Amino acid sequence: MTDEPAKPIRVALLGCGVVGSAVARMLVTNAADLRARVGAPVELVGIAVRRPAKDRTDLPVDPATFTTDAAELVTRADIVIEVIGGIDPARELLLSAMAHGASVITANKALLAEDGPTLYAAADAAGVDLYYEAAVAGAIPILRPIRESLAGDDVRKVLGIVNGTTNFVLDKMDTSGAGFEETVTQAQALGYAEADPTADVEGFDAAAKAAILASLAFHTRVRGADVFREGISDVTAADIAAAKAMDCVVKLLAICERTTGPDGDGINVRVHPAMIPRSHPLASVRDAYNAVFVEAQAAGQLMFYGRGAGGDPTASAVLGDLVAVARHRVAGGRGPGESAYADLPVLGIGTSTTRYHISLDVEDRPGVLAQVAQAFAAHDVSIETVRQHIPANSATGQAHANLVVVTHRATESALSATVDALAASPSVAEVVSVMRVEGA
Amino acid sequence: MTDEPAKPIRVALLGCGVVGSAVARMLVTNAADLRARVGAPVELVGIAVRRPAKDRTDLPVDPATFTTDAAELVTRADIVIEVIGGIDPARELLLSAMAHGASVITANKALLAEDGPTLYAAADAAGVDLYYEAAVAGAIPILRPIRESLAGDDVRKVLGIVNGTTNFVLDKMDTSGAGFEETVTQAQALGYAEADPTADVEGFDAAAKAAILASLAFHTRVRGADVFREGISDVTAADIAAAKAMDCVVKLLAICERTTGPDGDGINVRVHPAMIPRSHPLASVRDAYNAVFVEAQAAGQLMFYGRGAGGDPTASAVLGDLVAVARHRVAGGRGPGESAYADLPVLGIGTSTTRYHISLDVEDRPGVLAQVAQAFAAHDVSIETVRQHIPANSATGQAHANLVVVTHRATESALSATVDALAASPSVAEVVSVMRVEGA
Repeated sequence: MTDEPAKPIRVALLGCGVVGSAVARMLVTNAADLRARVGAPVELVGIAVRRPAKDRTDLPVDPATFTTDAAELVTRADIVIEVIGGIDPARELLLSAMAHGASVITANKALLAEDGPTLYAAADAAGVDLYYEAAVAGAIPILRPIRESLAGDDVRKVLGIVNGTTNFVLDKMDTSGAGFEETVTQAQALGYAEADPTADVEGFDAAAKAAILASLAFHTRVRGADVFREGISDVTAADIAAAKAMDCVVKLLAICERTTGPDGDGINVRVHPAMIPRSHPLASVRDAYNAVFVEAQAAGQLMFYGRGAGGDPTASAVLGDLVAVARHRVAGGRGPGESAYADLPVLGIGTSTTRYHISLDVEDRPGVLAQVAQAFAAHDVSIETVRQHIPANSATGQAHANLVVVTHRATESALSATVDALAASPSVAEVVSVMRVEGA
Repeated sequence: MTDEPAKPIRVALLGCGVVGSAVARMLVTNAADLRARVGAPVELVGIAVRRPAKDRTDLPVDPATFTTDAAELVTRADIVIEVIGGIDPARELLLSAMAHGASVITANKALLAEDGPTLYAAADAAGVDLYYEAAVAGAIPILRPIRESLAGDDVRKVLGIVNGTTNFVLDKMDTSGAGFEETVTQAQALGYAEADPTADVEGFDAAAKAAILASLAFHTRVRGADVFREGISDVTAADIAAAKAMDCVVKLLAICERTTGPDGDGINVRVHPAMIPRSHPLASVRDAYNAVFVEAQAAGQLMFYGRGAGGDPTASAVLGDLVAVARHRVAGGRGPGESAYADLPVLGIGTSTTRYHISLDVEDRPGVLAQVAQAFAAHDVSIETVRQHIPANSATGQAHANLVVVTHRATESALSATVDALAASPSVAEVVSVMRVEGA
């Protein structure tokens, strides 16, 4: 570095909601530290907002900083930070920013999972940086460790709780015994769930994050649409109670697995609720906290834990990226670009292996257990435990029993064929619930 | 990147012990992936060893790769990986490597804590990289998150279990009830402790790691010698039992704290055994696993967990650094250099605040509790709980009682003056044990 005063780094901020205002505030209050760490002053040249009339006097920035012309703003910055979310207009703005020579930092998981390669190609063409640590698991440094710290290792599995809303809902269902609808209403009242909670409760948000994690972990393009996705809206109070009986909790998990087996080399990426043992470290992840397990060939098991959402935590991740990108502006160099050389096939859910917890309402007569066991054996699914419970008073007058079967690990296709066979069996009155079991 | 075949990156490896041979093996077996991730072939041009006669046929490398001339080897490499440890000759070799234009990757915590600034200055003068993720907490990506991911945030505290040997010993003392000496002997037999366990059990290893963590977290030069250090050799079976009675475990903690108080702005860096509640996430860290908590202004609490030692886990960290450094060779740019601009004073242990668990053998007569309480009050130390236990049969014939006092948070100087006053008090027969309490 020379002794000449370094040219300021011009930063444009797109969006000024919870995350955007936290970013703006940190840019101002941490200015001296940022300058020392970057080697040049970092200057907030503009904040694009949709509603200029909104009162933002609590932010320590000149009112003239705000603009509604995002398209113009991105043409006069060295670094553009995007925290507006959604596909459009975010995509056009970021592509224009890069075409104008700006590096880009985004927290936009939906856009990255939908069209990441286009962003990477634009960054490459313009010779600029594309960073997005804040897009997955908020404040937790998880993308940089996967794409840099583990770059010499061979990642085998990523398993995490990456959505705070569903975690809050499942946690509350576990402690209160209440049903899904009731708990979501409560979460909405507390601000933990949005008015339209679909993206969270149906697993779209977690699926986008899983796609990003899998892309980096396995050096393969994975889109959100490639991810098997099952939300938590079908999780019942009975499922939670069944998990409790097993000393388990139900969590919405994002799972990315590298598979090498008879079904071929590839990767499995899925998001679904699953039982995990209460003793598992992920079981104690509460509220808006997130946690991600990473298993690599040489490193073994690693866990990362921290706040998965919120203005300040997300802003922390954005500012970390900002320092990295700004350093490149000052001292040269570029961060890692897209790494998709492995180009592994994304395998269908049928080939992934898991364990099932199946609760059945069966007739209470000799031979039923044998028939049920036969349905499993016919599909090569090995049973780990069977518990039978005969209700004291059968409401129907007919003798029924509740049968809970936990399987060993088997492929999804074998497990789901087994469940179909059970549902069609005359001995089975009802398949009460089916849930995957992970982490055991 | 161009279509021309990229020039190979020449890697020299210093040391071929547990970590070195894991690095060599990964360099060979992961060669195709490394080439794709770096953008050029990575070629192991030499391994410096002390004992060339040793059988290393299990390693998939050409025997001609081995050399005893480390000084010559470092002059013909683009990247030098040092895993021999200790101050000399590691320092001279790394300085020579950098003077000859090589970037350096080292796992040498002792050297970094002793003389990091000299290494950084040499890297800066030569325009090369200095990376050392493997020096702290093995496979856990902790340095890169602190120096890069949290670069825009304000780290307030780092608290971790960073030494596997002491963790194994304390863990075994907790489960077996055995004493320190006996457990160390057992750990040596199992390969968890070295023949001379001083560096581990007296906290030197953890202090070096604490110095590195504090330097990065607080942008201030901290040497191993600046770290307050208390090992575990004075931890008795009685201390462990006292911790159990409080539903706590004893762990050797490395603590780095940013303080802003009446005693001034500065940092506190210390390594000592402490009780932590059994419910605290660090309490369940077993054997050779490490875990590090980081608290930052905006990010909040983060935790990182994984294998803290061992050949493969440490090699994973080394190879991650290798990919980063090699990418710079191929695509330009340099990693972060030394950041010591904050230059905060390293405060003495007296100003740090903690809680104490004090077990006293006192006379069993009226007024004693009041005198003990007065000793605390006189030094402004607030008492949280007092428990008194009168043994059924006093061996001395005189009436004695055991008094356990747990304090609120106070400065070390006030706490230690209190303990001195208690030891001098005629009502106190013996100060049985004093232990810090953290994480509550």
